[in-house]
Amino acid sequence: MALSFPDLSGAALNDLVEKLTHYAISNGLVIYPPGFKAYQPSVAPVTLYPTPFPRAQFSKGVAISTKFNELYSRVVVDKSWLKQVIADLSKYDRNFTGMLYKTYLEAEPKIVQPVSLGLFRSDYMLDTVSNSIKQVEFNTVSVSFGGLSPKVGQLHSFLNSQGLYGRPQYYQEADLPTSQSMDGLAKGLLEAVKYYETSEKTASTIVLFVVQPGERNVFDQRAIEYSLFAKGVKSERVEFDKVTSSVKVDSSSKLFYKEQEVAVVYYRSAYAPSEYNHPDSWKARLLLETTKAVKCPSLLVQLSGAKKVQQLLTDRAVLQKYGFLDEELLSTFVRIYPLDSSEQGQIAKKLVFEHSERFVLKPQREGGGNNIYKQDIPGFLRSLDEKEWGAYILMELIVPAVHDNHILRNGEVLDESIVSELGMFGTLLFNETDGTILHNDYAGYLLRSKTSTSNEGGVAAGFGCVDSLYLHD
Amino acid sequence: MALSFPDLSGAALNDLVEKLTHYAISNGLVIYPPGFKAYQPSVAPVTLYPTPFPRAQFSKGVAISTKFNELYSRVVVDKSWLKQVIADLSKYDRNFTGMLYKTYLEAEPKIVQPVSLGLFRSDYMLDTVSNSIKQVEFNTVSVSFGGLSPKVGQLHSFLNSQGLYGRPQYYQEADLPTSQSMDGLAKGLLEAVKYYETSEKTASTIVLFVVQPGERNVFDQRAIEYSLFAKGVKSERVEFDKVTSSVKVDSSSKLFYKEQEVAVVYYRSAYAPSEYNHPDSWKARLLLETTKAVKCPSLLVQLSGAKKVQQLLTDRAVLQKYGFLDEELLSTFVRIYPLDSSEQGQIAKKLVFEHSERFVLKPQREGGGNNIYKQDIPGFLRSLDEKEWGAYILMELIVPAVHDNHILRNGEVLDESIVSELGMFGTLLFNETDGTILHNDYAGYLLRSKTSTSNEGGVAAGFGCVDSLYLHD
Repeated sequence: MALSFPDLSGAALNDLVEKLTHYAISNGLVIYPPGFKAYQPSVAPVTLYPTPFPRAQFSKGVAISTKFNELYSRVVVDKSWLKQVIADLSKYDRNFTGMLYKTYLEAEPKIVQPVSLGLFRSDYMLDTVSNSIKQVEFNTVSVSFGGLSPKVGQLHSFLNSQGLYGRPQYYQEADLPTSQSMDGLAKGLLEAVKYYETSEKTASTIVLFVVQPGERNVFDQRAIEYSLFAKGVKSERVEFDKVTSSVKVDSSSKLFYKEQEVAVVYYRSAYAPSEYNHPDSWKARLLLETTKAVKCPSLLVQLSGAKKVQQLLTDRAVLQKYGFLDEELLSTFVRIYPLDSSEQGQIAKKLVFEHSERFVLKPQREGGGNNIYKQDIPGFLRSLDEKEWGAYILMELIVPAVHDNHILRNGEVLDESIVSELGMFGTLLFNETDGTILHNDYAGYLLRSKTSTSNEGGVAAGFGCVDSLYLHD
Repeated sequence: MALSFPDLSGAALNDLVEKLTHYAISNGLVIYPPGFKAYQPSVAPVTLYPTPFPRAQFSKGVAISTKFNELYSRVVVDKSWLKQVIADLSKYDRNFTGMLYKTYLEAEPKIVQPVSLGLFRSDYMLDTVSNSIKQVEFNTVSVSFGGLSPKVGQLHSFLNSQGLYGRPQYYQEADLPTSQSMDGLAKGLLEAVKYYETSEKTASTIVLFVVQPGERNVFDQRAIEYSLFAKGVKSERVEFDKVTSSVKVDSSSKLFYKEQEVAVVYYRSAYAPSEYNHPDSWKARLLLETTKAVKCPSLLVQLSGAKKVQQLLTDRAVLQKYGFLDEELLSTFVRIYPLDSSEQGQIAKKLVFEHSERFVLKPQREGGGNNIYKQDIPGFLRSLDEKEWGAYILMELIVPAVHDNHILRNGEVLDESIVSELGMFGTLLFNETDGTILHNDYAGYLLRSKTSTSNEGGVAAGFGCVDSLYLHD
């Protein structure tokens, strides 16, 4: 049984908030506020307390992390299948999925680096019906908060060990696991650098972070850079829009930035259509894809993160083809339907109008804010031409556990219950041509929480916050 | 010979400023701006580059650190002498020195803890005439920036090792010593806790930080708290004004705060007259002085930091009495004159009107902003009744080295030369009654720099910044 949360109030709450705030600021658990000045960050939105989570379900998430990594490697290696899926999808989402795919097809004959790196995050909610974690999505590009997540765990551990949740320590320290995601993700990048330097017989290479302009979550990314530098690898940051004007590619397709050889291109951008407005955006993507540098992710790996792929992987036959008809994996799946002319699609089109309250409608796009929930779905679908429906998947809603906790945001303690999403980071270095796996590891966790009345959980977008785990039996 | 500074400009400068800013924020090298919100700190003002300093002079400062600690212990142990000095001084500065002294006299018969802790900082400037460090002042209460100083050294080392000052590394890493002052000061507090717990046969005690309300430099203090906690000792913070209403003293004079036994009272406040406006201010000071807790500093130790004592210690006879007629110490002294009726005072009263440009006039008070410089002195003295002059000491101005560097403040790179002040931290645990020294150590350094046009160097006051050392032969 989980302990109920240490619901502090009055002077004890004020003391907790002050100590939390100072610790967060002292340790870089910060984010830039909207319209920021570079020298003035804010405390990242966080929960006051760690949030209960069943130990066995967390352990399961850890255990299947490397399985999911490998499963996705097989999807990518099964190029003809993946290309067909993406080609179909491109019809519905020409401007983005279609352009990513077109760029891949253009790059394909010129690809000189078969090895690619995945820094993945598989996101789950704890479903109260089955008491099991259920996969929300599998993210294959620009997964965030791996740099800040450890700092939240350290923060909650610190507050606990100071006796601020109640004396003596309210939680057992062993029940408060600190995420190793900062070092874990850096380790993944390091593995890719080592592979590159060995195969290219070179040294002193860098990792090139391709970033968004005005990034508010930059301290999350910097934390990974510092961890990487402590492991001996330097990194540089370039805005996606400035790639074409600032990199050089030599005659052997090696990539250089400021005279430094780039071993790994790490995208913390380029995942949303709005980022491709520069005249050279697609040219930049194509250019990088055809260099010797290891991409994190490659275009194919990014495309494998399509919701459509997630939907297809819930099919036992598809799983079996990839050798992953695994009951542990399967136990984390919810029903996901296409909204196309397939048999399943026909069923779904009926279901969604009869029982819209059971579903969420998701487009292919990454990032929060685009999902349509429950009773909003029928009206939304009716506003579209039916042939556009194929751009969406229909997903059974997970009924998540609701917990007592408090979110601290801009100095204000929010007084609502929360729901949480558990992200399991994984790192995978593999050969997209022959399927060889060079490195595959679990890389720490992220717990994001949001007030239970908000549908979306994007932290930087202001709806949610970073949290940490309190494990219970 | 020292390298000239890496005077970056254009894109290289912008890149440096961005990386410096992100590193500073990620690592807690921050301060609250005026009128702050608790969740929104600012980058502490820092130099872009480390500042050159002669290695031999730095080594001398390290070497004499423990000598100065011990010298001041002898001053305090020589109670009748110190009391006479302070009693004289009290005539000129009744409201503060006088009240501190009166409070000490009241406490004296009830003092139950003969052991006190000094966290000192001896401040020097490099005098260009003698090429020797010259002591500006010896601080015995609430010395600041020991928590942030290591972070500046780490910052400059990081930027250097990233090749941002010039590739390959502009400076040799061995020439950029990182101050150990955060751990050094925490170690001093730990020694006092250990002494207390052993002699009182107790455990799980805390250090009570007595602080100012609305402290902007709180992250400097928190850094020491975190270091102390990592060594197993918890700390709490209480505002000076709230001491009387929030502490308890038991029948054996033990001090408690929130049911926790206090081993050490550590003042990061109570050094300026303006802090004693609460009706209970002096009562608070008296109360704490008469508890079993080790005070850092005790009233006598705080009083020993009077400029008058510093002036008297430049007298060879006084130094000899304490067994410290030491050429290394002496080499750091400038001439300091009293402005009283003594023979020296008569000389000084003449000198100051004839050669005011050679002097700075200092009151007894701690903290920046109260000194009178050069040609301002005669007018200032004339505005006072001559019998008030005794409250001041007249100090030969040091002609400090001026260096090329840049201060970064609120995102702005200041384009003026700088002068620097080197502070050497020291920790001393000793018995004020019998003179026994229980612990005496050098505890890291602080380099503060200011634009060479500004006379005052208080960092929090906005005139200066934190810096780090680049040692050269």
